[in-house]
Amino acid sequence: MAILLKEVDCRSSPVPSTAIQEKWLNMRDIPVFVDHHDERFSLPFTYGGLLPEESAFASAQVAILPIPYEQTTTYGTGTKEGPQALIAASRHMELYDEELDYEVYKVGLHTLRELEPIASGPQLMLDRITEVTGELLDHGKFVVGVGGEHTISFGLVRAFAERFPGLSVLQFDAHADLRDTYQGTPYNHASVLRRISEIVPAVQVGIRSLSREEAVWVKERGARLFYASEVVGSRTIATTISEALTDQVYITICLDGLDPSIMPAVGTPEPGGLGWYDVLRIVRQVAETRHIVGFDVVELFPIPGNIAPDFLAAKLVYKVLGYRFKLGKPRPG
Amino acid sequence: MAILLKEVDCRSSPVPSTAIQEKWLNMRDIPVFVDHHDERFSLPFTYGGLLPEESAFASAQVAILPIPYEQTTTYGTGTKEGPQALIAASRHMELYDEELDYEVYKVGLHTLRELEPIASGPQLMLDRITEVTGELLDHGKFVVGVGGEHTISFGLVRAFAERFPGLSVLQFDAHADLRDTYQGTPYNHASVLRRISEIVPAVQVGIRSLSREEAVWVKERGARLFYASEVVGSRTIATTISEALTDQVYITICLDGLDPSIMPAVGTPEPGGLGWYDVLRIVRQVAETRHIVGFDVVELFPIPGNIAPDFLAAKLVYKVLGYRFKLGKPRPG
Amino acid sequence: MAILLKEVDCRSSPVPSTAIQEKWLNMRDIPVFVDHHDERFSLPFTYGGLLPEESAFASAQVAILPIPYEQTTTYGTGTKEGPQALIAASRHMELYDEELDYEVYKVGLHTLRELEPIASGPQLMLDRITEVTGELLDHGKFVVGVGGEHTISFGLVRAFAERFPGLSVLQFDAHADLRDTYQGTPYNHASVLRRISEIVPAVQVGIRSLSREEAVWVKERGARLFYASEVVGSRTIATTISEALTDQVYITICLDGLDPSIMPAVGTPEPGGLGWYDVLRIVRQVAETRHIVGFDVVELFPIPGNIAPDFLAAKLVYKVLGYRFKLGKPRPG
Amino acid sequence: MAILLKEVDCRSSPVPSTAIQEKWLNMRDIPVFVDHHDERFSLPFTYGGLLPEESAFASAQVAILPIPYEQTTTYGTGTKEGPQALIAASRHMELYDEELDYEVYKVGLHTLRELEPIASGPQLMLDRITEVTGELLDHGKFVVGVGGEHTISFGLVRAFAERFPGLSVLQFDAHADLRDTYQGTPYNHASVLRRISEIVPAVQVGIRSLSREEAVWVKERGARLFYASEVVGSRTIATTISEALTDQVYITICLDGLDPSIMPAVGTPEPGGLGWYDVLRIVRQVAETRHIVGFDVVELFPIPGNIAPDFLAAKLVYKVLGYRFKLGKPRPG
Amino acid sequence: MAILLKEVDCRSSPVPSTAIQEKWLNMRDIPVFVDHHDERFSLPFTYGGLLPEESAFASAQVAILPIPYEQTTTYGTGTKEGPQALIAASRHMELYDEELDYEVYKVGLHTLRELEPIASGPQLMLDRITEVTGELLDHGKFVVGVGGEHTISFGLVRAFAERFPGLSVLQFDAHADLRDTYQGTPYNHASVLRRISEIVPAVQVGIRSLSREEAVWVKERGARLFYASEVVGSRTIATTISEALTDQVYITICLDGLDPSIMPAVGTPEPGGLGWYDVLRIVRQVAETRHIVGFDVVELFPIPGNIAPDFLAAKLVYKVLGYRFKLGKPRPG
Amino acid sequence: MAILLKEVDCRSSPVPSTAIQEKWLNMRDIPVFVDHHDERFSLPFTYGGLLPEESAFASAQVAILPIPYEQTTTYGTGTKEGPQALIAASRHMELYDEELDYEVYKVGLHTLRELEPIASGPQLMLDRITEVTGELLDHGKFVVGVGGEHTISFGLVRAFAERFPGLSVLQFDAHADLRDTYQGTPYNHASVLRRISEIVPAVQVGIRSLSREEAVWVKERGARLFYASEVVGSRTIATTISEALTDQVYITICLDGLDPSIMPAVGTPEPGGLGWYDVLRIVRQVAETRHIVGFDVVELFPIPGNIAPDFLAAKLVYKVLGYRFKLGKPRPG
Repeated sequence: MAILLKEVDCRSSPVPSTAIQEKWLNMRDIPVFVDHHDERFSLPFTYGGLLPEESAFASAQVAILPIPYEQTTTYGTGTKEGPQALIAASRHMELYDEELDYEVYKVGLHTLRELEPIASGPQLMLDRITEVTGELLDHGKFVVGVGGEHTISFGLVRAFAERFPGLSVLQFDAHADLRDTYQGTPYNHASVLRRISEIVPAVQVGIRSLSREEAVWVKERGARLFYASEVVGSRTIATTISEALTDQVYITICLDGLDPSIMPAVGTPEPGGLGWYDVLRIVRQVAETRHIVGFDVVELFPIPGNIAPDFLAAKLVYKVLGYRFKLGKPRPG
Repeated sequence: MAILLKEVDCRSSPVPSTAIQEKWLNMRDIPVFVDHHDERFSLPFTYGGLLPEESAFASAQVAILPIPYEQTTTYGTGTKEGPQALIAASRHMELYDEELDYEVYKVGLHTLRELEPIASGPQLMLDRITEVTGELLDHGKFVVGVGGEHTISFGLVRAFAERFPGLSVLQFDAHADLRDTYQGTPYNHASVLRRISEIVPAVQVGIRSLSREEAVWVKERGARLFYASEVVGSRTIATTISEALTDQVYITICLDGLDPSIMPAVGTPEPGGLGWYDVLRIVRQVAETRHIVGFDVVELFPIPGNIAPDFLAAKLVYKVLGYRFKLGKPRPG
Repeated sequence: MAILLKEVDCRSSPVPSTAIQEKWLNMRDIPVFVDHHDERFSLPFTYGGLLPEESAFASAQVAILPIPYEQTTTYGTGTKEGPQALIAASRHMELYDEELDYEVYKVGLHTLRELEPIASGPQLMLDRITEVTGELLDHGKFVVGVGGEHTISFGLVRAFAERFPGLSVLQFDAHADLRDTYQGTPYNHASVLRRISEIVPAVQVGIRSLSREEAVWVKERGARLFYASEVVGSRTIATTISEALTDQVYITICLDGLDPSIMPAVGTPEPGGLGWYDVLRIVRQVAETRHIVGFDVVELFPIPGNIAPDFLAAKLVYKVLGYRFKLGKPRPG
Repeated sequence: MAILLKEVDCRSSPVPSTAIQEKWLNMRDIPVFVDHHDERFSLPFTYGGLLPEESAFASAQVAILPIPYEQTTTYGTGTKEGPQALIAASRHMELYDEELDYEVYKVGLHTLRELEPIASGPQLMLDRITEVTGELLDHGKFVVGVGGEHTISFGLVRAFAERFPGLSVLQFDAHADLRDTYQGTPYNHASVLRRISEIVPAVQVGIRSLSREEAVWVKERGARLFYASEVVGSRTIATTISEALTDQVYITICLDGLDPSIMPAVGTPEPGGLGWYDVLRIVRQVAETRHIVGFDVVELFPIPGNIAPDFLAAKLVYKVLGYRFKLGKPRPG
Repeated sequence: MAILLKEVDCRSSPVPSTAIQEKWLNMRDIPVFVDHHDERFSLPFTYGGLLPEESAFASAQVAILPIPYEQTTTYGTGTKEGPQALIAASRHMELYDEELDYEVYKVGLHTLRELEPIASGPQLMLDRITEVTGELLDHGKFVVGVGGEHTISFGLVRAFAERFPGLSVLQFDAHADLRDTYQGTPYNHASVLRRISEIVPAVQVGIRSLSREEAVWVKERGARLFYASEVVGSRTIATTISEALTDQVYITICLDGLDPSIMPAVGTPEPGGLGWYDVLRIVRQVAETRHIVGFDVVELFPIPGNIAPDFLAAKLVYKVLGYRFKLGKPRPG
Repeated sequence: MAILLKEVDCRSSPVPSTAIQEKWLNMRDIPVFVDHHDERFSLPFTYGGLLPEESAFASAQVAILPIPYEQTTTYGTGTKEGPQALIAASRHMELYDEELDYEVYKVGLHTLRELEPIASGPQLMLDRITEVTGELLDHGKFVVGVGGEHTISFGLVRAFAERFPGLSVLQFDAHADLRDTYQGTPYNHASVLRRISEIVPAVQVGIRSLSREEAVWVKERGARLFYASEVVGSRTIATTISEALTDQVYITICLDGLDPSIMPAVGTPEPGGLGWYDVLRIVRQVAETRHIVGFDVVELFPIPGNIAPDFLAAKLVYKVLGYRFKLGKPRPG
């Protein structure tokens, strides 16, 4: 067998290729339904329920990276169940977007295994996130992070910032997340935008909860922050927001930016938030006028027995992808 | 193998082999974590959280077949969520069985995609189950059905009965399930043992709910039926039950056979049921003295927010597999 | 029409008989399924799902009286939903009792509408309960109260005590309920046995929670009280308990007397309670050696999403009825 | 009337009239509270909590037909609990409509028993629905179907289409439901409007989820379909929608047409749906300018512990009835 | 030390001062974290999570009075859990109000223990509420009642009416609550505004459910009642409402006045209610132009597992306090 | 007044005594109900609902330390809500123990504020726990830790081990918790007994889940480990367990040691666990023959809507305290 392997030159593969070889060798013995479409079997537990043949890593343009990290949450519990709930819901979405007359799944959406949490503190976990995100970007993937608590976005943004000079970040959130430290660490959900804004400029949308210290920091620094009351129902703010961003944009969507009426499944649900069409209008405007290079959707805390928020989160990922790949300007250079 | 590759010529494969070819062709471009162990990534959503390399179809001795079928349930709703809940729970089990000093997962446990329900009535669905089960048996797999409503067991048993002459069935259940028809069809959860006992002999254990007509049928036919009150806490009944079976045994475990204290997550939970050790004692005895050729665990109706029943069901599958593969007599012929 | 009415002499009816007359007059126009069995329609929302033809008031021996009263509960909330949950569950019971080879529903079980709560305090509500129970007893019914908080049992017992001289009460409960007053009233769930024992002797079974004052009262009065630890698993205590009762017995089953493992759906679930077979053994013994003249099942606090406790409560009513009507001694004189 | 009684001669009644006769014969022995108003007793479990005297079949103009059918649902589970939840909630509605200064319950609302599901596939079940609906229409009733999955609407519409020439259907829904077949059958929730539109013209309102194939079908056929984004918040669309309908209109309200913020209790909740006043405005306009001949409300999946959606569904039925009976044009011919 | 105590004359204290004395005597032995800020310990379970040093009774201007009373609720159950849920949620609010650039907690917010329910009927309970509220007002506190069922507001208003001549009441509610009696008592949630309007004038906002009798009463009396449909989304109604009030205003916020989309956690959730900004706009207008002398927030029925409504209720209390203390006109003489 | 303060010399207090001084100074102005018993007010949210006068720190022998730490949990989520749920439940316990004829609360039980989690990793959090526990022990308190994940027990045990030479630990648990590291840290719930057994000898009871590596470690080291199957229902094992301990014993009760039937509210519920009386029998035996110096109860994951597990946990704390203070041998030296 070693000889055999030599001949096909598998040795040079850096990975233990047992599973792949086995499939190859026993291919005639493997029923089609194991890896391929067979109408007698349901869709797999991938984002969009995509089969291996529609979502193989090598050909997929998009990599969905689930990060069920929940270390430092404050009030509710359960955001580590978020990625699985979002993916489960996504299997029941229509893959056709009637607004765009488009099926973005055809660009190939590969769902990765969940990133394994590190329990020794957020710093090492953020390093892991940055590292893996970087590897995915270096494979040419458009990366979508699915949380998990908001802290993870810093890990994601770091990997993007290294590779996309002039990046800016668009944050949807109820909370400013601008504390310097919280619960004894600078790396937590309440400080994540402070950390991010230390490396790239950020525009904050939907804010309706912050401390006096954060308000002072915003004022002193002249940070771009759009309070929820300015954004809810506005038909013109999308342009203003868009113009506050640089050409290359990473979007971080903390789901509590949306109104609790449509998104109760968050850790600290603040009344007075954004509606579904408020968010879509802004993202669409950004997609049409800027380059969206990646994004994340975080802080889904599934409520047992209520699937509506999970479904919204799943569809939001799909809408953003649709805007990006259908309407997005060609990538510069 | 190069020769082999040439000879088999991928393109001649009867299955659309895109995904496999792609992996092969692009192997150098595929990061290890896509299919293999990488400590930065969590376990996949397979039974036991087994990685592809531990659970590839070709080498696995066991095939776990999730059948989320729920057509004709009566009271509660949700058994179609059962397979996913059982598998989710199984990812948190220890894979070592201290009673047996054994790790049965090493025989290879392959988790299939869920069987797709047919909505045009149970008859076609049962045909699908029998067909797929037959294919798996013909590939030499030890098949474990995971329900889904009890109706599915008839589809499973039919495939076994064709291949294992002299088969008998051991049923754990609160209900006799011996109605001739129910809700306008002979194929439903309340008739499943009636259908099964028309093709193979059955022994029923844990029964504590049946109609007068069923009771008369049992008496007239001299069927072997052990009421729950005879079984709960008994240390000797296991032998009696075992001796009522033929040499080749299929076990169908309707979870409501267990007591609602440990298994509330069923559609019609009947008080006075079997304890955990009651069931284990019987299955172990059967494993030691008979050949268990396959089994199913059905009627898990996950209760949102209560994971204990899901976990019990997941571990029960593992215990039965352990008894079967560690203690089971060598298969005849 | 007035003439018509005169002729059939409806005037003498004390009730406004519009509905009945209408049915009569339009009988040919009323489809059978409105009041009668029609296989195209499901069972009604009565105890056991009995149709009008099986449960008409006039011919039924048993009257099920739902009393969704919840005034003075302490910890959990929701016992006013108890009667409806018990009745909903009862529609999914088998109506055949295999232990007794008997179908007690054939004696006729009439489910009354729920008793309307009075919000001005428990005293008037108890008067209403006593009044209605008395009317039912005077119509010759065997009355089963379904709660609702335990307070209601005093209203029931008062009506029985007036009509059954020499009555004693058998209480299943975790709590002694012997406080003199509680929350500013002598009529509440924590005092109900104190009130009852002021009019008839009581035997208490399953107790595992009481105050020092109650313990002193029990000791001083020499009250018959069987702690849970004496009863759980005992095969002999049933006789002792039975012998402590007079010939005519009213049973009040506060569901928290059972163990929370099988009955979590109570307001103050105390660990270490009675098992299903513990309770059945005692009730059966009492049914065989005493006259059970009525009973109630109280303090069901349905847990949304967990039907097992509701089902147990529904079946417990059916078991007690079965013991009473199959095994009960002929009523004295 | 005595004469009358002789003349009609109960025995010649085609229905087993035991219950009715018994009531008649024993009338003096039956306490008033069994069938009539008695302030000591609560409202019955009928729609609106109406007593027999307010809702007798013969005199009621409206028949509420609960159809707890759930065969082919996709994502969530539990719509078979929908009718009971809607009716339970309706008992707590005010029966006075302040918008209309009107109490529509006075036209008589009779709640039928639930239609019994057939488990052998949707085709026979749809036949049952069409048959029973037809019988009710032939008794002159205004029929309101309460689901249950959307599939049932086809059974209802068939019965109406036979009796109301020139009928059109107004659908509120998030999904187009225009697939030709799904899960192996043409009769399912995802195909119901395709089936309906094969027999009568349909207008679809609130759509925001469909497949490419459905979108193509809509375009090619020139079907009338109003996307949610056109309808939400619009004050003029009601007239446009109304004018797209024929004079005789059947309305089918799939509750997921509403926004998940107010209606999370559906199987596949799609964000961006209709508000309460959006729906009312359209139905009112249709009631004022067209003849509403019947309607259904389907796909309520009660969420244990959240009564708000059940209540909305109950009130929606009442609002539609109010518009129809207060504002509706006199029925032609 | 006894001498010391004599000298400062503790004996003359009317209260049993054991705890206070002990603290004094042992002060050196008591670790700082018992009563004071210590970063190693979390916030206490007070409103806003305020420490003793920030919320001591003597210095606090505001007294939060939790009244977990639930006697006469109709549909849902659990409002007696409301105060605790509101307070638990309030510990996770930001204490800075960005709309007002203000931290109202600095006026001192003292959270009292819950008022103990009386089970002998609402009349005595209302007396207790009036008595305690009066004591708090006489200590100069601004009182905030937290319910508990709406009935309690009558107890609160009575105490205010005695002390604030010319008081008027602003009610947010879905229901008119104008029944004369209900469930056998004039003191209940469905009559509370009838009782209140017998002693002070009331303005009702958000109403969308009332009986014919209540509608007639409103019309005859010319009561000021703003239906929800007039208020939702209106930018001008705030002034009209404000002008209908006298100079001194007590606000009673029944949470079902809000839309169930943002406030599902109520007993009878009526669709079509007020949005978050609708309520804020009105309260702010009243704060700016009238004197708010006190208020209550009632009828929170926490939904297990959904914290969004609890959080909204907690924040609503904080917003009203902020408007009152930041924008309120100086109290007249 | 400043003079007075000088005279009693408050300035020398090491703590910022604002709150205390204020109370003192304004004592006549503070209503009794703020700190003392007043029948109009409910019990506070302390363990057992004890008032300040019954539970002041200085006089209390017992300190209850809630530690809502949840960093490294695996499956379920929510143990950080455990302490609050346990304390909420404890307010509804009887404070009299009928088994012991004893009221242990009279020794004084002081409930501390919750320990604040540190989000930068478990090591610093464990240091905080050890530090605070040490301070409490040095104040002479009997410390009871309430979790929170099992990891915290290592912090507790370290403080005890420093002060009680010859200490041994008795662990109730389903899992051996003997992994060397897990999720990248040696300080986690799966390694806690490994860490503990590195500093003091441990006896493990109720185990039924461990890895092969843990099983080997146990065998090689000859560790004392009692599997659940040996303990469930045994009347003699208590003595054996007790004799395996040293004279001074710390008990750590991981609630998953109990059977999921009575304790479903844990993160990884393993079937086949200990019953209520199994645990009590062992603890009582240890209390009678050894010195219990402290204990913890950990891993309560409250299930929304099911209070039974919370109540069991609260009562378990009370039972252990009762055994310790009523039956415990006098402390040596």
